[in-house]
Amino acid sequence: MKKYCFGADIGGTTVKLGLFDADGIVLDKWEIPTHTENEGSAVLPDIAKAILDKIEEKKLNREEIAGVGVDVPGPVAADGSVPHTANLGWGYKAVTKELSELTGLPCKAGNDANVAALGEMWLGGGKGHRDVLMITLGTGVGGGIVIDGQILTGAHGAGGEIGHIHVKDGETEHCGCGNQGCLEQYASATGIARLEREWLKKSDEPSVLRDREISAKSVFDAVKEDDALAKKIAEEFGTYLGKAVASMTAILDPEIIVIGGGVSKAGPILLKYVRKAYEPVAFKSTRETAFALAELGNDAGIYGCAKLILG
Amino acid sequence: MKKYCFGADIGGTTVKLGLFDADGIVLDKWEIPTHTENEGSAVLPDIAKAILDKIEEKKLNREEIAGVGVDVPGPVAADGSVPHTANLGWGYKAVTKELSELTGLPCKAGNDANVAALGEMWLGGGKGHRDVLMITLGTGVGGGIVIDGQILTGAHGAGGEIGHIHVKDGETEHCGCGNQGCLEQYASATGIARLEREWLKKSDEPSVLRDREISAKSVFDAVKEDDALAKKIAEEFGTYLGKAVASMTAILDPEIIVIGGGVSKAGPILLKYVRKAYEPVAFKSTRETAFALAELGNDAGIYGCAKLILG
Repeated sequence: MKKYCFGADIGGTTVKLGLFDADGIVLDKWEIPTHTENEGSAVLPDIAKAILDKIEEKKLNREEIAGVGVDVPGPVAADGSVPHTANLGWGYKAVTKELSELTGLPCKAGNDANVAALGEMWLGGGKGHRDVLMITLGTGVGGGIVIDGQILTGAHGAGGEIGHIHVKDGETEHCGCGNQGCLEQYASATGIARLEREWLKKSDEPSVLRDREISAKSVFDAVKEDDALAKKIAEEFGTYLGKAVASMTAILDPEIIVIGGGVSKAGPILLKYVRKAYEPVAFKSTRETAFALAELGNDAGIYGCAKLILG
Repeated sequence: MKKYCFGADIGGTTVKLGLFDADGIVLDKWEIPTHTENEGSAVLPDIAKAILDKIEEKKLNREEIAGVGVDVPGPVAADGSVPHTANLGWGYKAVTKELSELTGLPCKAGNDANVAALGEMWLGGGKGHRDVLMITLGTGVGGGIVIDGQILTGAHGAGGEIGHIHVKDGETEHCGCGNQGCLEQYASATGIARLEREWLKKSDEPSVLRDREISAKSVFDAVKEDDALAKKIAEEFGTYLGKAVASMTAILDPEIIVIGGGVSKAGPILLKYVRKAYEPVAFKSTRETAFALAELGNDAGIYGCAKLILG
């Protein structure tokens, strides 16, 4: 068995890199900038150089390295290529082929949300499970589905695009995807901030929120202070998300639902609001399905990349 | 390579049996009654006898038989056992173990809706695909999900329980599952009949439906005759189902959606009503995903059972 592997989580501004042993222990972790200029032509060579330098620095035996797992912020085809990844400046790119040629190591690639789900399954909030639904509540709402230890990619790389489940009729504003009434419009950090703005306007109830910055964090902080208006906002957020999660579990029936992303820093109180709306509409066999908070934070990507390689 | 296999699709009143060659050609097809009395203790012995008799009748060489695939109307665990199957009178039963002992052949088991999806993927409406979402509109609404050729069973055997996706708030009647507002309450044959009853009551519009038996079939027959009221009912049905399918594709991103069950006999007109509601809310990468009608009818089960064995 090979002793080591690398993970490279490519974001729009930095690439997070990790050197792992076969048990998932992080031996080293570092970052390099993502050079998106010139159609992102330097991104993969920069990663390859970082890895080759690390091999040299650590005096690793190349024979003992299982490979390099990489994730990108966009859809990845089954052959390890990407059709286009706007955030990196890429058009079509044969990611695994190119990175493999540059490093001389086997490479595998996946979409960032899916790979983060794999990482959380392996050593985070979903540890000990093989069927995991991961929901990332950040600027947007992302998702990653792992079934029997394998990522569900989908026919167009859209597997787990749960932020775009339609949850509300009659919405007048548009989601980033162009549709109206997507989950992301109510359950992301920006969505919660929007709900907050609406509630502050339509209600004249006193609230600590009136003196604070508009944000998802402010809402959940105020909930913890027992602020009545903040609780109504959390309730509305929970209703959209809880019902959508019930649709997801009726379809996927995962062992565990892991909620991550910046919004999840609110902690267990967030799960309480989601479960409250989830349980009355969840299919009976899935009503008791466990909810957990993500544990790996920004490292979920490099863990998932390593797991792509370690299998 | 083995030459033959058997499929046994166990329903509450009959067991459908099929003898297949390795290409999926049906060499023989027959039925036996399902004896549910005495806790269904005769069901598996009856199936074993039917298979052993067929082997004798056809003078098959046992060495050339790959095995027996079987489906049951209830959840099936990964080890081929069922916790309970009310329709067959069964409590816990180690289905594959028992049937394997009775026939001396390898056995595999699956849930009927899931196995039917596998059959339709193999040789029916989903032929040529590996990622299929099958929706069965019968007395209830069932579903089966096949990903990369494998059934998605789920942690509690509830994978593909799409009939219990919550699609309507404020519903006063209960679904068979106990919840209120399940897809099944509007998109099954009984659900469509219910919508028809409601429309006939709340509208005084003339309609050919006023002189006909209340049924999903009557509704779609009248749609084909250009009946305005029937079209409103079909529209409401399509709205519930189309939006729910958009949730499913945002989660699963299948290559194709296959719609079967008695209601699907309405034909392509049914798909038109579903797509009309689907497209405006579907995530962009999945908006053009193909819809097809199921092709194997009541034989989907035995085909899927055979495919369980042939892999």
